[in-house]
Amino acid sequence: MNSSSASSKPWEHAKAGSGSGSDPLAARFVESISYDRRMFEHDILGSIAHARMLADAGLISDSDLSAIEQGLEEIRWEIRADLDGWPGWKVDLEDVHMCIEAALIEKIGDAGRKLHTGRSRNDQVALDLHLWLMEACRVLNDELAALCRALLDLAQRDGRIVMPSYTHLQRAQPIVLGAELLCWEQAFSQCAQRLEALPVGLRISPLGAGAIAGSSLPIDRQASVGHLNKLLGAGQRGDAGFEAVSDSSIYSTASRDTALDALYGMSMAAMWLSRWAEQWIIYASTEFGFVKLDDRYTTGSSMMPQKRNPDMLELIRGRCGNVYGHLVAMLTICKGLTVGYNRDLQEDKRHLFAAFDMVRDSLVMARRIVESARFNEDRIRAGLERGFLDATSLADYLVLRGIPFRLGHQVVGRLVQLCEERGLTRLGDLELGDFNRIAASLTGAEGACDESVFEWLGPDGVVKRYRSQGNAGLDGFRDRLEARRSYWAERVRA
Amino acid sequence: MNSSSASSKPWEHAKAGSGSGSDPLAARFVESISYDRRMFEHDILGSIAHARMLADAGLISDSDLSAIEQGLEEIRWEIRADLDGWPGWKVDLEDVHMCIEAALIEKIGDAGRKLHTGRSRNDQVALDLHLWLMEACRVLNDELAALCRALLDLAQRDGRIVMPSYTHLQRAQPIVLGAELLCWEQAFSQCAQRLEALPVGLRISPLGAGAIAGSSLPIDRQASVGHLNKLLGAGQRGDAGFEAVSDSSIYSTASRDTALDALYGMSMAAMWLSRWAEQWIIYASTEFGFVKLDDRYTTGSSMMPQKRNPDMLELIRGRCGNVYGHLVAMLTICKGLTVGYNRDLQEDKRHLFAAFDMVRDSLVMARRIVESARFNEDRIRAGLERGFLDATSLADYLVLRGIPFRLGHQVVGRLVQLCEERGLTRLGDLELGDFNRIAASLTGAEGACDESVFEWLGPDGVVKRYRSQGNAGLDGFRDRLEARRSYWAERVRA
Amino acid sequence: MNSSSASSKPWEHAKAGSGSGSDPLAARFVESISYDRRMFEHDILGSIAHARMLADAGLISDSDLSAIEQGLEEIRWEIRADLDGWPGWKVDLEDVHMCIEAALIEKIGDAGRKLHTGRSRNDQVALDLHLWLMEACRVLNDELAALCRALLDLAQRDGRIVMPSYTHLQRAQPIVLGAELLCWEQAFSQCAQRLEALPVGLRISPLGAGAIAGSSLPIDRQASVGHLNKLLGAGQRGDAGFEAVSDSSIYSTASRDTALDALYGMSMAAMWLSRWAEQWIIYASTEFGFVKLDDRYTTGSSMMPQKRNPDMLELIRGRCGNVYGHLVAMLTICKGLTVGYNRDLQEDKRHLFAAFDMVRDSLVMARRIVESARFNEDRIRAGLERGFLDATSLADYLVLRGIPFRLGHQVVGRLVQLCEERGLTRLGDLELGDFNRIAASLTGAEGACDESVFEWLGPDGVVKRYRSQGNAGLDGFRDRLEARRSYWAERVRA
Amino acid sequence: MNSSSASSKPWEHAKAGSGSGSDPLAARFVESISYDRRMFEHDILGSIAHARMLADAGLISDSDLSAIEQGLEEIRWEIRADLDGWPGWKVDLEDVHMCIEAALIEKIGDAGRKLHTGRSRNDQVALDLHLWLMEACRVLNDELAALCRALLDLAQRDGRIVMPSYTHLQRAQPIVLGAELLCWEQAFSQCAQRLEALPVGLRISPLGAGAIAGSSLPIDRQASVGHLNKLLGAGQRGDAGFEAVSDSSIYSTASRDTALDALYGMSMAAMWLSRWAEQWIIYASTEFGFVKLDDRYTTGSSMMPQKRNPDMLELIRGRCGNVYGHLVAMLTICKGLTVGYNRDLQEDKRHLFAAFDMVRDSLVMARRIVESARFNEDRIRAGLERGFLDATSLADYLVLRGIPFRLGHQVVGRLVQLCEERGLTRLGDLELGDFNRIAASLTGAEGACDESVFEWLGPDGVVKRYRSQGNAGLDGFRDRLEARRSYWAERVRA
Repeated sequence: MNSSSASSKPWEHAKAGSGSGSDPLAARFVESISYDRRMFEHDILGSIAHARMLADAGLISDSDLSAIEQGLEEIRWEIRADLDGWPGWKVDLEDVHMCIEAALIEKIGDAGRKLHTGRSRNDQVALDLHLWLMEACRVLNDELAALCRALLDLAQRDGRIVMPSYTHLQRAQPIVLGAELLCWEQAFSQCAQRLEALPVGLRISPLGAGAIAGSSLPIDRQASVGHLNKLLGAGQRGDAGFEAVSDSSIYSTASRDTALDALYGMSMAAMWLSRWAEQWIIYASTEFGFVKLDDRYTTGSSMMPQKRNPDMLELIRGRCGNVYGHLVAMLTICKGLTVGYNRDLQEDKRHLFAAFDMVRDSLVMARRIVESARFNEDRIRAGLERGFLDATSLADYLVLRGIPFRLGHQVVGRLVQLCEERGLTRLGDLELGDFNRIAASLTGAEGACDESVFEWLGPDGVVKRYRSQGNAGLDGFRDRLEARRSYWAERVRA
Repeated sequence: MNSSSASSKPWEHAKAGSGSGSDPLAARFVESISYDRRMFEHDILGSIAHARMLADAGLISDSDLSAIEQGLEEIRWEIRADLDGWPGWKVDLEDVHMCIEAALIEKIGDAGRKLHTGRSRNDQVALDLHLWLMEACRVLNDELAALCRALLDLAQRDGRIVMPSYTHLQRAQPIVLGAELLCWEQAFSQCAQRLEALPVGLRISPLGAGAIAGSSLPIDRQASVGHLNKLLGAGQRGDAGFEAVSDSSIYSTASRDTALDALYGMSMAAMWLSRWAEQWIIYASTEFGFVKLDDRYTTGSSMMPQKRNPDMLELIRGRCGNVYGHLVAMLTICKGLTVGYNRDLQEDKRHLFAAFDMVRDSLVMARRIVESARFNEDRIRAGLERGFLDATSLADYLVLRGIPFRLGHQVVGRLVQLCEERGLTRLGDLELGDFNRIAASLTGAEGACDESVFEWLGPDGVVKRYRSQGNAGLDGFRDRLEARRSYWAERVRA
Repeated sequence: MNSSSASSKPWEHAKAGSGSGSDPLAARFVESISYDRRMFEHDILGSIAHARMLADAGLISDSDLSAIEQGLEEIRWEIRADLDGWPGWKVDLEDVHMCIEAALIEKIGDAGRKLHTGRSRNDQVALDLHLWLMEACRVLNDELAALCRALLDLAQRDGRIVMPSYTHLQRAQPIVLGAELLCWEQAFSQCAQRLEALPVGLRISPLGAGAIAGSSLPIDRQASVGHLNKLLGAGQRGDAGFEAVSDSSIYSTASRDTALDALYGMSMAAMWLSRWAEQWIIYASTEFGFVKLDDRYTTGSSMMPQKRNPDMLELIRGRCGNVYGHLVAMLTICKGLTVGYNRDLQEDKRHLFAAFDMVRDSLVMARRIVESARFNEDRIRAGLERGFLDATSLADYLVLRGIPFRLGHQVVGRLVQLCEERGLTRLGDLELGDFNRIAASLTGAEGACDESVFEWLGPDGVVKRYRSQGNAGLDGFRDRLEARRSYWAERVRA
Repeated sequence: MNSSSASSKPWEHAKAGSGSGSDPLAARFVESISYDRRMFEHDILGSIAHARMLADAGLISDSDLSAIEQGLEEIRWEIRADLDGWPGWKVDLEDVHMCIEAALIEKIGDAGRKLHTGRSRNDQVALDLHLWLMEACRVLNDELAALCRALLDLAQRDGRIVMPSYTHLQRAQPIVLGAELLCWEQAFSQCAQRLEALPVGLRISPLGAGAIAGSSLPIDRQASVGHLNKLLGAGQRGDAGFEAVSDSSIYSTASRDTALDALYGMSMAAMWLSRWAEQWIIYASTEFGFVKLDDRYTTGSSMMPQKRNPDMLELIRGRCGNVYGHLVAMLTICKGLTVGYNRDLQEDKRHLFAAFDMVRDSLVMARRIVESARFNEDRIRAGLERGFLDATSLADYLVLRGIPFRLGHQVVGRLVQLCEERGLTRLGDLELGDFNRIAASLTGAEGACDESVFEWLGPDGVVKRYRSQGNAGLDGFRDRLEARRSYWAERVRA
């Protein structure tokens, strides 16, 4: 939208010849006030910063500034008191920006008419978007951090339980539960890092870009940034605030890159939430029985007490789809769109708000589920001795005894076959002689194994043997847990 | 969800050991009452049909049935009177189905407790979805039809204006405006046909599928369909209602195919709306100047009176992205989901309602824009004589004079070159001798053209010459317009 | 593309002033011959039909027609002999249509130059797309049918195994395995129905729509359809072929609705394949152990013989994403695109071919997995007695004994609680007196149950009790199996 | 895939009881060698680094290392000589990793059998992915930089042309062409910044994560990183190489975050390409006529010489859809996927390669189009005086003369109305008295304007008046152009 708008607005002349009246559907069709009102704090903060710059630049007087600040403060309190009931919301005025400006003019008169000096709705809405996104990303990062810490707490308590790992949902090698919990922690921590790297350009202020071309007035965009940062409290608690002003007024008003970057960052968090939810839904099935979810987070049946429907996990999983949908919507909207501002861009907030609410709620819900979950060590260990999960460990042992890996692989295969022929379920039930005989027959090497081979077998033996950095055994888990606890402790302090 | 639900519900025992209390976030996280309340009419209709079947089958008494019908009628009127303010909406009861059943029990006691006999929330919600979709598809088809008729009316009035057609957004051959309007009419008519073919299985009733396995009670699903159709008024005005009952109780409760089909059908309508909107946005630019949108559907500026921002068209175009997003969301939700019911499926209504509202509003808005638009014949005709848009027509003429098409093509190319060499802007400015000389030099054919060649040149000549069925010239337009007016007139009568 | 093309083509004049030469990247950038060559059969068939119509209409001579037919036949055999090695494929000629026409002209001279009379690449490519889609949809429907029949065969063999059904991946009520298999059969059958309802407009011929405006020549589009159908063999084996010609030349060349419809139909098949694959991946896990996949369709390890990685199922599941991606790509391409033809539309075949290949291969693979799978009755039945899966059945019994459903629900809940207090795992372990005492205490009804109650308990009892149409018990399965076998038998005969 | 694979592989025992043989479809269904062969350089580089680490750690001998390095070098040269014809590609061996290892074993025997010591295909493929992505992101960033420089060169040449800016595709305020070119430069520069911030975790090495749990052997993952970086030449020309090793073996093998991040980065580049392409397609239309594309990058017609179809721009625009599709595919694949490795993940390369090729080619094509485009100043200036595009400038002037902005807005509106009443097309045609009279009547201020007002009117006046940082006028353009030239010059030097 340009610096002016349809003829029904009080600050404009009626359009010549528009005697045909207006269509109520049109007002409803273009309005965004039904959802963008939630940005009122950001809009007011941005307006105060802008007004202070105008006063600095001599474009408005100090008394104008006082009136504006006082008026906006009053409006802020009025809206805070009753967000939905505030009488200033008028569909005809379309959006949060116009409603607040109109209310201000009504309250303070001419001083209010000066607020929009040197700016346009196009840069105003872009600024508000940046301000909202700064807060949204911080909130999501806080929730991601809280979820990570909850995973660490659970790992601290139950992490030493020995369990099968899965590839292809088939039992693979023995690991400790903590290693799997730390995998989720790693994934969500990465999501937080992404939301710090994105949105690119979030800390570049669009204020002063005007409708598309900038302004002919001696506004000082850098000074606006100073006022914004002061109002944001940037610098004081490590928050960066804005770092610079944008260099292309056209780009600043035509782009929604920050919205897209944020939606993508949220999609990745939603994706990992869906993976974790699916895993725990499977772990919570009767057949697996690995995890018991707290009653508060399942839906049960008085008739089938063992049925504990993991509805919350299912909704977390399903809502990943919703977040993807918002990303796709915004990508589609921007496809093939000419510059500068087009009204299509107005839909951005619809998607951001909905995606943000879903991801934040899902993160909180995920944390509570993690905090209240109980793992069932007996069920997890059941059958762990079966399936030759120590086969890879034995192959590694053979490598250390000088047998080429691919040959060692064959030796283990033959030993497993031998077990099956003899009806043995565990490699550890074979005799040392068996190991050496098979190894010799396939590789020519005599005495490949000694008694130490048995230390490499059995799940408990295996999880102690992993040595590579970041391994999923006991040592890897212990090191990593400590490192991650320090990491998050530091970040909380910072 | 299964036939029972979380422990806070009045008709259930507290879960043993759930002394830990409940988490308010959990209730908010799982509820759908904030949006599914709009299905209250469908839910009540479905319940009445179900109750009538239960009475038929002797599973409830006639007086139970009376009480249930009367109670539900009362609830219907209460909700109609104040959709959002109805006191029966309780977040703890999660959804529209449970809220209405609870209110009924409160109102009529034991008879109300019998309503849920032989059904489950899982088939109940599936039924309500079908009922809502039947209505939604009918509404969309009505709006598509109305838009088509508006396009025909416009074609009737302005359709004979000769204009350039565009391929690659470059001027191609002359056509009449009506042919382009009929292209949009064809596209939207096809969208309506698609919404009649889809959703597949819409007229198969899931009621009686139970939670997943059906029922052990002697319910009569076919009878339920009879009652449903009677309540729907099916048959009376051509509406099909339900045709059969579903054959797989598991599929009936685990599938959301109808929701997906509808979302796809809406996406296609949104896609064509976006194409039309883009075309008219370009036509409404100063540089094209083909169409003048009514003031009610542009946003102007008192300072720049020629600026007529086509905000409505832009929103129609942009909201295509929203609809795509809903389709992608639902496709994602269903990906890799096990059968039967999973709570993820609850999100379906969120997407259906939002997509429906957007597509319906966009269709209405598109119609009003079409109804009030004015085409500017002077601007459209400007420059139509330039650019040799009659070149293809001339090539066709040469074919009729016995010159192979690809050679004729070359002849025309040389003639155009000749025009340029002589500074002529129109093929019609050449002499007959020129035509014949060039044709002879390239093809050997003497006297290929006679005076009739000039009838094939110039935009007005060209649009009269098209002969193939469905052509974009005068004849094609006239035939098609009549056919389409009859088509829609018949459908309205039907 | 319009009826003519870049200057390097042999049948065109060099463009005046294009001395700057050409850029090899440009040729590579626009070509589609690297993938659209697979439509050569469709292109040749379409050209023959077109040529026959031209001869009928007297636009070419009978000897021209003979030469064209013979030339195209030769080209067909040359290409069939070596699809990728055919020397006629030339990147400069861009696509399958131009390569074949150029080869024809080279072969037969002037007669070849007449083939393109009255048509354009724009309607030619649209026709080829329809022809290819007709075949593709038929192939997919055949594969869907084959998969359905494989599911029925498996159901016939193992369908009577009693198993738990799952909602929320939690054990719900007892069903027979056949009912779950028939759920998949129902889903895939629905996919086939969808691919018969879609693409809308597939049987409307675009041939004769020209570049955008139709033709000035006396072509007979209806006659072209007659020739097409004869060449297609339509009518003889029930295939419909084309039913009519299109009515809007602009729509016919600007639309890709048929491509989108087909991609959506494929997406739905891919979605159901992903659901089935996920279910069977879970069933194939050690913890469930319900199904054993054939060695040919798992990837194993000589070291861990119990590890049977279901790679094929995983790829079927994952490739659902690919198909969705193709749908989204094509939806995005069409968003906001002006009419008529734009080069963006050329990408359609890239998506159709890739999606088709994936869905077809996945269907074939799914069928082979179904055909070779073995269900493990012992594992499936294990624990079926636990978990009170007969609770719903008992509630239904109580309804038949006159207790309102919601009260019956409570009675069952109390009985389950009683079992747990006494350490009993089955409702059937309670005494008749227990049933009556609890029922009386909660409902006031004396002697609610008699000995027949025990027939309603236990999984085997429950699966015999379901009575509603389409139920997942023994009767429902038996009826449905027979019906479905007849259905497919009839279709094969047809 | 786990450390071992299907029974047909030469280094494995036949699976007991797999006498049923194999299904050729299965091999074709799971193979990735048809497309992942293009990673052969990355695979070999990774293997050499791994082997060097194994030798350091004493797990293989120096002579083993020599044999491995020499063997891999030979294979590298063989493949380079004939990528598609290399005889080592065998579908049965499934992928690039297995084919190269098998060829190595065939070449050097037992030393080759040791190469896979302490690693698995799961971490190997993850490493290769990181290596490929490092290169891909660098290539894309180079192309983005080249496109930015081409835009700057064009801006340097033609940037001072005064043109209308557009919002809503309606003429807004006068700007200089260079400002719009710098908007595109800004957008693509931002895309490059995004591809530097993403993929998060690209420089974390997964090598050594094993199949899922790490390794029991004394491998030194940090040493592997040292060898990798040396082979990559990291550090020497500013390339970062790897910075650390991953801390969660499960995450390292189960995640495809880097692939998703890259696909998102590519999608954003494709989105901006589509916006630019659409804008220039419109600018290249006859009606706008702003830009003339070079003949090499249009498809013309010898019959309609003015028709210059912008096929390349259309394909750039349309292929945005393809890239979005790949992103959606990969997001879908990852939705709800359990950890660790699942075969679904194999599809990642299909999407990355296709998206990369398209974005890179589109960037190159875009650059060439920019380099060879000519802007038509006469057409651009035409009508620039009409439409009161200087209205905003006048409103700013009034602010400087002390009139509140919203009142000034009204004054301008009245003045424009006055022009229209008098049939004047330009505000500059009014007299000074008119300005003052209207201003006084609406604001009470006398003598608001003096002669200087005329300097603020007319497009040439306006573009000189913009003062705010980043403005789209002459000053803003000049400053920004210089800054951007320095920026890119520095980056090229770096």
